[in-house]
Amino acid sequence: MRKTAILGIGQTKIDEQWDKSLREIGGEAAFAAMQDAGMDRVDALYVGNMLSPMIDAQNQLGAYFSDWIGLWRQESVKVEAACASGAAALRAALMAVAAGNIDSALVIGVEKMTDKAGHDVTSALATAADADYEVEQGISFVGINALIMRRYMHEFGWKHADFAPFSINAHANAMDNPCARLHQRITVDQFERSSMIATPINLLDASPIGDGAAEVMIVPAEKVASVRGRPRITVEGSSSATDSIAVHSRKDPLFLSAACDSAKRAYAMAGLAPEDIDVFELHDAFSIMAALSLEASGFAERGQGVRLGLEGAISPNGRVPVCTRGGLKARGHPVGATGIYQIVEVVQQLRGECGKTQVAGATTGMAQNIGGSGATILTHILKAN
Amino acid sequence: MRKTAILGIGQTKIDEQWDKSLREIGGEAAFAAMQDAGMDRVDALYVGNMLSPMIDAQNQLGAYFSDWIGLWRQESVKVEAACASGAAALRAALMAVAAGNIDSALVIGVEKMTDKAGHDVTSALATAADADYEVEQGISFVGINALIMRRYMHEFGWKHADFAPFSINAHANAMDNPCARLHQRITVDQFERSSMIATPINLLDASPIGDGAAEVMIVPAEKVASVRGRPRITVEGSSSATDSIAVHSRKDPLFLSAACDSAKRAYAMAGLAPEDIDVFELHDAFSIMAALSLEASGFAERGQGVRLGLEGAISPNGRVPVCTRGGLKARGHPVGATGIYQIVEVVQQLRGECGKTQVAGATTGMAQNIGGSGATILTHILKAN
Repeated sequence: MRKTAILGIGQTKIDEQWDKSLREIGGEAAFAAMQDAGMDRVDALYVGNMLSPMIDAQNQLGAYFSDWIGLWRQESVKVEAACASGAAALRAALMAVAAGNIDSALVIGVEKMTDKAGHDVTSALATAADADYEVEQGISFVGINALIMRRYMHEFGWKHADFAPFSINAHANAMDNPCARLHQRITVDQFERSSMIATPINLLDASPIGDGAAEVMIVPAEKVASVRGRPRITVEGSSSATDSIAVHSRKDPLFLSAACDSAKRAYAMAGLAPEDIDVFELHDAFSIMAALSLEASGFAERGQGVRLGLEGAISPNGRVPVCTRGGLKARGHPVGATGIYQIVEVVQQLRGECGKTQVAGATTGMAQNIGGSGATILTHILKAN
Repeated sequence: MRKTAILGIGQTKIDEQWDKSLREIGGEAAFAAMQDAGMDRVDALYVGNMLSPMIDAQNQLGAYFSDWIGLWRQESVKVEAACASGAAALRAALMAVAAGNIDSALVIGVEKMTDKAGHDVTSALATAADADYEVEQGISFVGINALIMRRYMHEFGWKHADFAPFSINAHANAMDNPCARLHQRITVDQFERSSMIATPINLLDASPIGDGAAEVMIVPAEKVASVRGRPRITVEGSSSATDSIAVHSRKDPLFLSAACDSAKRAYAMAGLAPEDIDVFELHDAFSIMAALSLEASGFAERGQGVRLGLEGAISPNGRVPVCTRGGLKARGHPVGATGIYQIVEVVQQLRGECGKTQVAGATTGMAQNIGGSGATILTHILKAN
């Protein structure tokens, strides 16, 4: 099994892009990634996307993007795992390059949510949950997360304001990221007085949707040296794990067992431990998910993820820097694209390209992408060398 | 890169299964494949499906089926490439096992079409075509195939009845397949007098949809010997290629260039030529596609695929046996599952389990799965050894 490297990255700004179609958004980031990699062709295309059949009435995004980008005749396919579609597409590409079957793969994470060909976004997002046993009962996706957050607060004795540091950190970090959807600092007071969505989740606990694409070019590590003075970014760990799709079937609804399983396997593959990770791009779709992700991945004890925020450990100069480019909360959450935005951001940190939110001396970064309320979770560990 | 083998197969009957849900159908074939392989666990699950977000309001089928089948915590993901989703999921599984990352993978091809959570099946199927440049203009998927067939008849001088042998052969072969949807012999006269759908495609040119699941268990070839007296079935060739998603963008709308590219690569990988293939499970979604698939895969000259049917070469005792278990036409076409039904049927042939439609002495078989009107095409070559 060959080791793989990330040679190029590209991304679009996350926004309501009413003037651009799905293919234009995906194409824009593709050309950026290819240019960044200095490549004008690739052997295969892997697309991560969740909603296009419903929102854009378009399936078969593999061929669709090969066609649009001009990579005719190449192998192309779409991978879907709800909000973890981006990382799942990355992992499929990594396997194909590792197997030696192909020598380069472009991974496209793309989502166009501000369009609709029949479905509203809320019901389209609900397809990440269990249609028979959750959604049919009338619950929305934010509703499921609200139940988890409420139980967490009850079980471990935290109050709503204790989650504020996650959102405040994300918003502060996004100020320096031109691709972020939101550029606006927030305070604890604003966090507490924000509009309620589904108690206890309010507007500033929740990440905004958006249109966007982020892309990476994967090649065998042996074929890359430091390019143009940049360090070589290798993939040291890659793992995917699952849990029950419905929350009520889990042994413990407050523990992301798939995050724990996938993080453990990724650490083992990389020969690393949580304390070796310099930057952690986690999946803060809701502030409760940031806490649960930190706990399941070995950065905090059960019920204590919130404490890392309160102690200031999560800022770019803290002990466990998270969401250094704004996270899902402020960079935005174009669902199927998010997993690749996280990878792009880790690469930017390892290249030292993050300006005011650069983590000093970062050489090892981790990204964790969550599908549904924790049913599919992928963890990737990258290293500069 | 490790060589892979198919250790187990399972399938359900294709039908309108109103009494069974998506998860029950997928689970039924999963247990059959695991039992056939003599395995009660697998390292990873790959699901091929096209329509569940639209028809069943369910995404994230990887975790969904891991959960239902009881393969908790395992890696799972869904792969989509329209009607080629089944073979695309197989190929992703083959890459992961070949890379050495996992030692076993269950590939689920599943589709439940006789349910609806918002979309009618015709508009859901149209997502395989180009939403902006084809579907938006009002054409359906059968309409696109009708334009291709009409042009083919005009260009090469064939009349409608010349396509009859494809459907007659498929219906005759399905008589001996208990999983086939249709058990009814047809004649040229019936073929000619069947109800028109979109001129010149009539009801007996078109494959019926249905609910069904077909599944295969993939393991490294080195770990398998002949089991229980059955030959070892190895994967000798696997390839995927694309063409423009819209027909009008193709250099020649009457040539499946992605079938040609993927077949050539699969032959090269296997070290074989068309004349070495003992049985060919092709993608006869419409009779015209059977002709085009034979031509692009090297079994007939341009415009002469139809002649193979007229000469009787396509029957189980002919020179190029196709659709030996009924093909899409009579076995049925549960779209995302079809690619795996084809693989299951090739395995049955190579095991010598096909009764009246057994191809005598078959040791090498090929399956070709087509997404859209030819935008994504995968070719797999299997061998008994």
